[in-house]
Amino acid sequence: MANPTAAMLVIGDEILSGRTRDSNMHYLAGELTRHGIRLMEARVVADEAPAIIAAVNTLRASHDHVFTSGGIGPTHDDITAEAIAAAFGVGISQRADALALLAAHYERAGLEFNAARRQMARIPDGATLIDNPVSTAPGFTLGNVHVMAGVPNIFQAMVASVMPTLTGGAPLLSQSLRVNRGEGEVAGPFGALAAEYPDLSMGSYPFIQNGAHGTNLVIRGTDAARIDEAMTRLAALFG
Amino acid sequence: MANPTAAMLVIGDEILSGRTRDSNMHYLAGELTRHGIRLMEARVVADEAPAIIAAVNTLRASHDHVFTSGGIGPTHDDITAEAIAAAFGVGISQRADALALLAAHYERAGLEFNAARRQMARIPDGATLIDNPVSTAPGFTLGNVHVMAGVPNIFQAMVASVMPTLTGGAPLLSQSLRVNRGEGEVAGPFGALAAEYPDLSMGSYPFIQNGAHGTNLVIRGTDAARIDEAMTRLAALFG
Repeated sequence: MANPTAAMLVIGDEILSGRTRDSNMHYLAGELTRHGIRLMEARVVADEAPAIIAAVNTLRASHDHVFTSGGIGPTHDDITAEAIAAAFGVGISQRADALALLAAHYERAGLEFNAARRQMARIPDGATLIDNPVSTAPGFTLGNVHVMAGVPNIFQAMVASVMPTLTGGAPLLSQSLRVNRGEGEVAGPFGALAAEYPDLSMGSYPFIQNGAHGTNLVIRGTDAARIDEAMTRLAALFG
Repeated sequence: MANPTAAMLVIGDEILSGRTRDSNMHYLAGELTRHGIRLMEARVVADEAPAIIAAVNTLRASHDHVFTSGGIGPTHDDITAEAIAAAFGVGISQRADALALLAAHYERAGLEFNAARRQMARIPDGATLIDNPVSTAPGFTLGNVHVMAGVPNIFQAMVASVMPTLTGGAPLLSQSLRVNRGEGEVAGPFGALAAEYPDLSMGSYPFIQNGAHGTNLVIRGTDAARIDEAMTRLAALFG
């Protein structure tokens, strides 16, 4: 069975201006790989509704799952929920269950549950809430799109809430061999080996350490025995 | 005059599998902002020709500049140069000037200039070379697409080679105010202020430090006097 596919959409001016370095893509990539879901592409767009809507509609049509991060807070530039509703052509309103969660949270914290905070209860029609154990304000799943917060620890908590609900595939396995030779020296034999194993993915990642060139050779796939076999061949070539 | 726009395309399975955390997007975002070029979107795709070709053709039609990273090394999965040639519908060959640069480099290093390393001289017809002072193998500019290496220190050196050749815009300026209040408390007045300054971009970035909620409020634009004026208003609201 082929592995399910996924795309990620990072939403936020602060990433594109260079103010903030995104960390959610790397985190999600690792979690999906462990879960046997292939991350096929990722995009970063600004806090602008047309850009979000276009990207969501392209990505949800092409992949089994789409994961978004950012833009679901209480401020004027938090427009992701509205944009997702528009992308699906559904309504959006402050939902009773989300309002109740938030009201209880702010009462416990002794903080006013004001109009801005109520905005975080706006959920597109037909969506399922994603639990946020960090700060309560929920994410949501609509169709195959999982909408999550941009703050990294909240994003990670929401990914943990969503993952068990998804059907994964065979885990995506990898092994690597570190060789003390430049990429240009290993490229020929490595490419020939890769051609013999079209069911596996082989990549090479050069590095420089203490002035010396080296390369990490990585073999990825879902069949552990095939990866073992190819790694044995690789070690014989370069070990 | 409106600022020029740009998009970035990160090419590499290793980013999507979670093996490697991309750092080039964040670096480029900062450099473009300083140069007055607006990074409007970024995409990450796998080492697959159809994905690279489709993304390059979409992005180069929509933005003044496209910057790519990754896939121009000597191994079988380094297919970016071929994909760019295909996207533009031009030929590609090992070019004499690139071969000469590489031959001299490997002679100095006492390393064999083998077939794999010669691959790094493959340059699409009509392209201009981008200087690589780190490891010689050049990037290239074809039309409005700047093709650079994925290894971060080489990517950064190539960006430094390209930037002076580009026409920038008014520098994109920003100021920020750190307030010891949650985002939900500042959202109302902050949104009202943002509505009064449609020529500026205002964003809020919540954080938790030592268990206390705080928010960084950021104002961006190209008119320093307008930003100063808005910051004075902001400080009066929350200072």
